[in-house]
Amino acid sequence: MATSGSIYITPVSIDELDDVSTAELSADQQFLQKAMQILFTEGVIKAGDRRTKVVEYLDPHVLKETFDLEIKEKGVGTDKLLQLLKDTLKYSVRSANPRFFNQLYAGQDAYGLVGQWMTDTINASMSNYEISPVFNLMEVEILKILSDIVGYEKSDGIFCPGGSIANMYGISMARYHKYGEAIKTDGLSGLPRLILFTSKHAHYSISKGAAFMGFGTKNVYTVEVDERGRMIPEDLEKQIELAKQQGHVPLFVSATCGTTVYGAYDPVDAIADLCEKHDIWLHVDACWGASALMSQKWRHLLHGVNRSNSVAWCPHKMMGVPFQCSAFLVRDHIALMHNVHCSGATYLFQQDKFYDLSYDTGDKVIQSARKVDAFKLWLMFKAKGYIGFEQEINIKFANSRHLAKTIEEREGFQLVVEPTCTNVCFWYIPPCLRNMNKDSNEFNTLLGKVAPIVKERMLKGGTLMIGYQPLDDKPNFFRQIFSNAKTTFQDVEFIVDEIDRLGDDITISDLGKNK
Amino acid sequence: MATSGSIYITPVSIDELDDVSTAELSADQQFLQKAMQILFTEGVIKAGDRRTKVVEYLDPHVLKETFDLEIKEKGVGTDKLLQLLKDTLKYSVRSANPRFFNQLYAGQDAYGLVGQWMTDTINASMSNYEISPVFNLMEVEILKILSDIVGYEKSDGIFCPGGSIANMYGISMARYHKYGEAIKTDGLSGLPRLILFTSKHAHYSISKGAAFMGFGTKNVYTVEVDERGRMIPEDLEKQIELAKQQGHVPLFVSATCGTTVYGAYDPVDAIADLCEKHDIWLHVDACWGASALMSQKWRHLLHGVNRSNSVAWCPHKMMGVPFQCSAFLVRDHIALMHNVHCSGATYLFQQDKFYDLSYDTGDKVIQSARKVDAFKLWLMFKAKGYIGFEQEINIKFANSRHLAKTIEEREGFQLVVEPTCTNVCFWYIPPCLRNMNKDSNEFNTLLGKVAPIVKERMLKGGTLMIGYQPLDDKPNFFRQIFSNAKTTFQDVEFIVDEIDRLGDDITISDLGKNK
Repeated sequence: MATSGSIYITPVSIDELDDVSTAELSADQQFLQKAMQILFTEGVIKAGDRRTKVVEYLDPHVLKETFDLEIKEKGVGTDKLLQLLKDTLKYSVRSANPRFFNQLYAGQDAYGLVGQWMTDTINASMSNYEISPVFNLMEVEILKILSDIVGYEKSDGIFCPGGSIANMYGISMARYHKYGEAIKTDGLSGLPRLILFTSKHAHYSISKGAAFMGFGTKNVYTVEVDERGRMIPEDLEKQIELAKQQGHVPLFVSATCGTTVYGAYDPVDAIADLCEKHDIWLHVDACWGASALMSQKWRHLLHGVNRSNSVAWCPHKMMGVPFQCSAFLVRDHIALMHNVHCSGATYLFQQDKFYDLSYDTGDKVIQSARKVDAFKLWLMFKAKGYIGFEQEINIKFANSRHLAKTIEEREGFQLVVEPTCTNVCFWYIPPCLRNMNKDSNEFNTLLGKVAPIVKERMLKGGTLMIGYQPLDDKPNFFRQIFSNAKTTFQDVEFIVDEIDRLGDDITISDLGKNK
Repeated sequence: MATSGSIYITPVSIDELDDVSTAELSADQQFLQKAMQILFTEGVIKAGDRRTKVVEYLDPHVLKETFDLEIKEKGVGTDKLLQLLKDTLKYSVRSANPRFFNQLYAGQDAYGLVGQWMTDTINASMSNYEISPVFNLMEVEILKILSDIVGYEKSDGIFCPGGSIANMYGISMARYHKYGEAIKTDGLSGLPRLILFTSKHAHYSISKGAAFMGFGTKNVYTVEVDERGRMIPEDLEKQIELAKQQGHVPLFVSATCGTTVYGAYDPVDAIADLCEKHDIWLHVDACWGASALMSQKWRHLLHGVNRSNSVAWCPHKMMGVPFQCSAFLVRDHIALMHNVHCSGATYLFQQDKFYDLSYDTGDKVIQSARKVDAFKLWLMFKAKGYIGFEQEINIKFANSRHLAKTIEEREGFQLVVEPTCTNVCFWYIPPCLRNMNKDSNEFNTLLGKVAPIVKERMLKGGTLMIGYQPLDDKPNFFRQIFSNAKTTFQDVEFIVDEIDRLGDDITISDLGKNK
């Protein structure tokens, strides 16, 4: 049959191909093999070792001079490339280090990392079953598991590129659920103002979504929080009534389980009562806090989450899955995600395929092809089981409580708020401020300048990484996050010692200089 | 200073830590090391070998029985996990195989893959300089390079999760550019209908964006195309005038460079004239076709693209960068992206940091933290130089022209349209149809049933993967995509031979049975 110059090969299954010699590797394959060794030694073994700096900090203009960034007409050779890989590892932040606490994610899980590497090696995209058969089945399986854990009986869902977009999916579903196909075809221009509600401590993605999706940021009504940072249901109802009085349409409430700074959990059950009463879609932004559901000890924090209409959950945060792994789940409305987002492009979603089309997910999302984010989580589940995840979550919570206790016992440290999630928010008060009147404006102004100075010293020494921010009327404070199960009580105590070491010689004059 | 139970360590630079023994690896590190060997042998060496099947196809219900998907209370051991990795590779599609042509992306670039693995190992996110110093510098560097290639003198941009979202950024910019801060705060509800224009062969993401962003799909006006699939500027102007007569506001034109099916390039220069005349934002969806800019021989296809206001370009397609790598670029308006999308969340974007804040990108996107998509492209650039990419693009175009020529010379094959990009669209006409009247409805109905049958046989044999779809009044045809520089002329000829082999015994009765 092969009439032209083609070489006809009847291919075999991959496990039947035995005569593979690595003696005759091509130059790029040799590079790849050597690079793998660097990744293993420098990127895994050394990066996770407490004896290496969390960060080898250089200012942007210095790093730009230090690092050979420039692209030229011709490429460079293998040795140079391998050196650049080492440089990349050297000057990047080591989130694998058990003393990295700067983000909501931390650590480097070997199973998760292999899962991510596998995904990349196969280079599949999520859109159709035929292009990623294994990963499509796994995504369905894992979404079902997450839904079961949330407590949804029937559900649909998707992995999406981050929690912000997961929250936007919640808004998108609410809009379509209320207005049906008309909102999709006609848009918002003829409609009254649709109002979204969320707490003042909620993530900014609700506001970003309101802007991007055409609602407008002023149509996000901000609900008051209590002293622990939890949404006050009575104020939510007041805001709903206000919107109605103004002639607007209350559409969507986003309750937060695990606020970004305090780690507060809004009272979902009470909020669900209000949403039922006023016929409003209840979305729960549990991007950060949902992982507590993995623990019998801590899942009570999300009491009532099973009553929500949709939920966002990022296992790449407290569950330690490699970044990025964000699930959006919707209760009951099985076909709704597809109806809301489908375009029916025939060139991608042919209806005359010979297999079950329910695994073709490309038309229920706003992306076309998506990264595979399910496999790494599936592999971690397979390796650890439910129990392994539970133990890790318990360790992270225990670390946070141990830090809170340590802080309460230690001079010069003060909790901003009792921890709920694994966030621990605290001030470090250097000796030069300890005798001042703590209610004075001057004290608060100076205190707000401490964290930036300590953070700068921390980055330059490379011993730790912790974030800080102000909130409401509270001056800058540290927000310690526990997301790495390898962090020990000794590391927890190190945090306090090290901040004290970095900050104890700060003078009033240092604080005055810092703008 | 260490007064409590903490162990004080003064950490060293990673390249100073020498006493690292791999003799005492933990169980998870041992797993990781063994997994790396599987990735290399099975996922790289064998997967890229023509002698292995492109796909080991199983129907969803069969794969579900074959593959041990289930998650249990307890985890499984290393041996079992390693076997599952092999199974994952076995039943996943091998897009590394030079005979995989199903998507707009294909191939497995060793440099790109190492870049992706490195990104995952470091597990950084893009949001602030301090959390990903190296990658932030590289993103800026690479975006500048892409902008220069497009021909923008001043520009801003971002990597985003796919071309669809890149196109939505274009819409978002257009809207804010016209209405300013008011559109962000007030939304669309009080405004007249804003009209988006794109061709009937454009990607569905414009329509998805119109739905998601609150415009409504009926406010996407569809412009006619010529016989090669290019937008007809005269019809665009007609549609613009129509929108004005209807009292609506023409806001945004998306010209396509490299349509999904035909690979057509809209005449950007002529469209830019109209957009200037009517004061409309010109976005170019060059997700697929922009990579032709890398070649002196083929960059003329995008003549005029430097006049656009924004452009979307996915190097993960024709440039062979691992999925996903999608750039959104905007001309001139340097601060606009930030203004359009910022929320000003103080806990993330502290203004009292001690370094240059211009590298903190988290507040100019709709996501919060993003995956690092720049490094793999940077590493490929470093390894190949501009010249290496140019050579590869030229190979892909040459393959497409060679296939078109082969098809024209071969009985039973017919081009749907002359290729422009590396798409080659063609029908396979099995012997049983060759004597029929080609203008008859019956012929066209039967012809439309050929591709699904051949595709099913192709998947089940694992020799090739090519997509098919209908378009307008044209029955199902194959769309062959060249995105892998390792594909040779012999592979090209194999395509034709193999389709002939798979399809030549198709009978009229087979075609009648297929729904």
